[in-house]
Amino acid sequence: MSYVSGFRCTICETIYKKDAITTYTCPSCGEKGILDVLYDYKSIGEVLTRDSLKANSDTSIWRYLPLLPVEDTYLSDTLKVGGTPLYKSKGLAEVLGTRHLYIKDEGLNPTASLKDRASVIAVIKALEAGISTICCSSTGNAASSLAGNAARMGLKTFIFVPERAPIGKLTQLLIYDATVVSVAGDYKATFDLSKAAIDHFGWYNRNAAINPYLVEGKKTVALEIAEQLDFKLTDWVAVSVGDGCTIGGVYKGFYDLLQLGLIKKIPRILGVQASGCAPLYKAFRTNGPVEAAEENTLADSISVGVPRNPVKALEAVKKSGGNYVSVSDESILEAMSLLGKTEGIFGEPAGVASLAGIQVAIQEGVIKKDESVTFIMTGNGLKDIKNGQLAAKEPIHMNSNVDEMIRILSQK
Amino acid sequence: MSYVSGFRCTICETIYKKDAITTYTCPSCGEKGILDVLYDYKSIGEVLTRDSLKANSDTSIWRYLPLLPVEDTYLSDTLKVGGTPLYKSKGLAEVLGTRHLYIKDEGLNPTASLKDRASVIAVIKALEAGISTICCSSTGNAASSLAGNAARMGLKTFIFVPERAPIGKLTQLLIYDATVVSVAGDYKATFDLSKAAIDHFGWYNRNAAINPYLVEGKKTVALEIAEQLDFKLTDWVAVSVGDGCTIGGVYKGFYDLLQLGLIKKIPRILGVQASGCAPLYKAFRTNGPVEAAEENTLADSISVGVPRNPVKALEAVKKSGGNYVSVSDESILEAMSLLGKTEGIFGEPAGVASLAGIQVAIQEGVIKKDESVTFIMTGNGLKDIKNGQLAAKEPIHMNSNVDEMIRILSQK
Repeated sequence: MSYVSGFRCTICETIYKKDAITTYTCPSCGEKGILDVLYDYKSIGEVLTRDSLKANSDTSIWRYLPLLPVEDTYLSDTLKVGGTPLYKSKGLAEVLGTRHLYIKDEGLNPTASLKDRASVIAVIKALEAGISTICCSSTGNAASSLAGNAARMGLKTFIFVPERAPIGKLTQLLIYDATVVSVAGDYKATFDLSKAAIDHFGWYNRNAAINPYLVEGKKTVALEIAEQLDFKLTDWVAVSVGDGCTIGGVYKGFYDLLQLGLIKKIPRILGVQASGCAPLYKAFRTNGPVEAAEENTLADSISVGVPRNPVKALEAVKKSGGNYVSVSDESILEAMSLLGKTEGIFGEPAGVASLAGIQVAIQEGVIKKDESVTFIMTGNGLKDIKNGQLAAKEPIHMNSNVDEMIRILSQK
Repeated sequence: MSYVSGFRCTICETIYKKDAITTYTCPSCGEKGILDVLYDYKSIGEVLTRDSLKANSDTSIWRYLPLLPVEDTYLSDTLKVGGTPLYKSKGLAEVLGTRHLYIKDEGLNPTASLKDRASVIAVIKALEAGISTICCSSTGNAASSLAGNAARMGLKTFIFVPERAPIGKLTQLLIYDATVVSVAGDYKATFDLSKAAIDHFGWYNRNAAINPYLVEGKKTVALEIAEQLDFKLTDWVAVSVGDGCTIGGVYKGFYDLLQLGLIKKIPRILGVQASGCAPLYKAFRTNGPVEAAEENTLADSISVGVPRNPVKALEAVKKSGGNYVSVSDESILEAMSLLGKTEGIFGEPAGVASLAGIQVAIQEGVIKKDESVTFIMTGNGLKDIKNGQLAAKEPIHMNSNVDEMIRILSQK
């Protein structure tokens, strides 16, 4: 926390000193007053430089410690979060016809999604606060990443999930020994019940929409992308959007680098929502308020009808000169198959929605053919085999007769 | 290939010059004459040193290029294989009562298993040979890793799998656009059919038991473990064993380091087989021949009744002063749950079999309480959710009534 200088409320814009905040949100605005963590960039700039990064052999997110709101007490014991590969595309770029295309494979984080970046921060903050139980509500990835990261550090977890959470994600967090509460209801009902439990039991709250520190963890994906591109960013960075916290983190990471003078411009951010659940897309395109939407998409990780972080989600796109697009479930499944076929990367629906979004943005003329793009593949396809099966082709069944095998395969 | 000096047959021990080998196996011994790749360690020692490794920022397996049988032509385009974390255990070490315990999480490779280390080598060798189609038979991980690594490099794949392959692994390789042939039969029938297809169509053969280069890829896991431990290895290294190629690779990696003077001693290698399919365990313990075994275990990746690499598999253990143990399916499921709970790592059955094996080895007095152990967790649990569910506890179902929630959770 040595470089955190204070907090700013995203609603009333009041600035608070570091020690003035003892809860998660703005004391005036209440639960909707999500806070933004402020840093002393001048001091950070003295310790975090291109040269210091080059000399740093730590490939986890802790290499960016001066830009993170945690002490170094517990860091050496955590799961190794971050350091995921950024691939320059050949096959996929050709199909899309884009000049330069990069893929950030976040499915290779320890519990197989970008959410590990936030969860490991939550676990550290709980330890720093002396709290031994953490809770969150989640459509899946936040939950399993919290459970995994907490298990490694010896903390207990209570996880509230909506009934529709895919079995892959559920099994994963049960293996991590979380106490899982499966709620008959939608994401909002699940979220509200978790909040009541947190209030009653005094657990640490990992709900990304409330807790101001989680977006700070998520921003490390942007820091890594920038460093992996030697701080020469692509014109666009595309990411799928549910609650709005991840896209807020992506913006924050680039914002930090801009303050430090490590980049000259924040890339345009493309927010991608599923057509069946697109409240932020609609608000952005109509310049209207964010209205509750149905949750009608197979991309469970971004199926959030009432996003809890609308301000950060809309501002990330607006301030970066970006845009929002929405994509059909069919195009998400096609993107899953396309990414696997051309790049050897298997992404979950929400993870490849950003790729489907790039295709839409190119069709709509939002992204120009000569512009370069990075997309963040947020989660591993192994988490959601059911939808993977919908996207995959069929195997050929045969017995062990050699002649028949040769006859059949000769036609392939 | 600049440092490869030749090949030695593991059966007749004939040494061949580099250019004398145009097939995969020994010209005299035929298909059983699996070759071992020989290196010019003196020259390698001049370029691969502790200092050169420290100065190398590449965290993939290509950092060990002088010890690998490939040219550097295609390396910059591959998936990023290797660089997986090695964790020092706290929670699990306490449960086992071992002095020092380390866990190598191979589930964080690009297609989520150790097999990527071999598959990426196969893909490079096919490209070097100008062959555009690769084939293998596999119980799952070798297949999906081949399909993923080949897709990234624009190669076509034909994969022969036994019908029992878990749906997670099947879906994954279908997403990578492999042509999958599902064979009604056991692993041997699948292997034989793939061989007939390779002979007929002239495809590149990725079958680890035949192809001498794959064990060279797998050995990088040992190189990484050694480097991550600053070349101060644990007394034991435990790994599960199916075909015998992985354990052969682990030995070869340590052997290489010994030749280079980077380590003083090869650690004792603990080979772990499932009780329901333990031909190598039986051969080792009885000092008898390797006899075909039933394939009766839920750990599909090591369910190999007729191991194709028995010589390397037995010698790895014998020469290192190690041992073989066998473990029940029940203990594998318990190890899966234990690893998740204490370390936040979700492993597939074959991946955690090595942990169950450490427990048996401690009980049998094979591993002493004051000895240190590293175990290689070979594959991600998300690949096999069905068995994950067997190991996991149950969620608590409830509606959104707050009072009832508090009443129920107060008892947890």
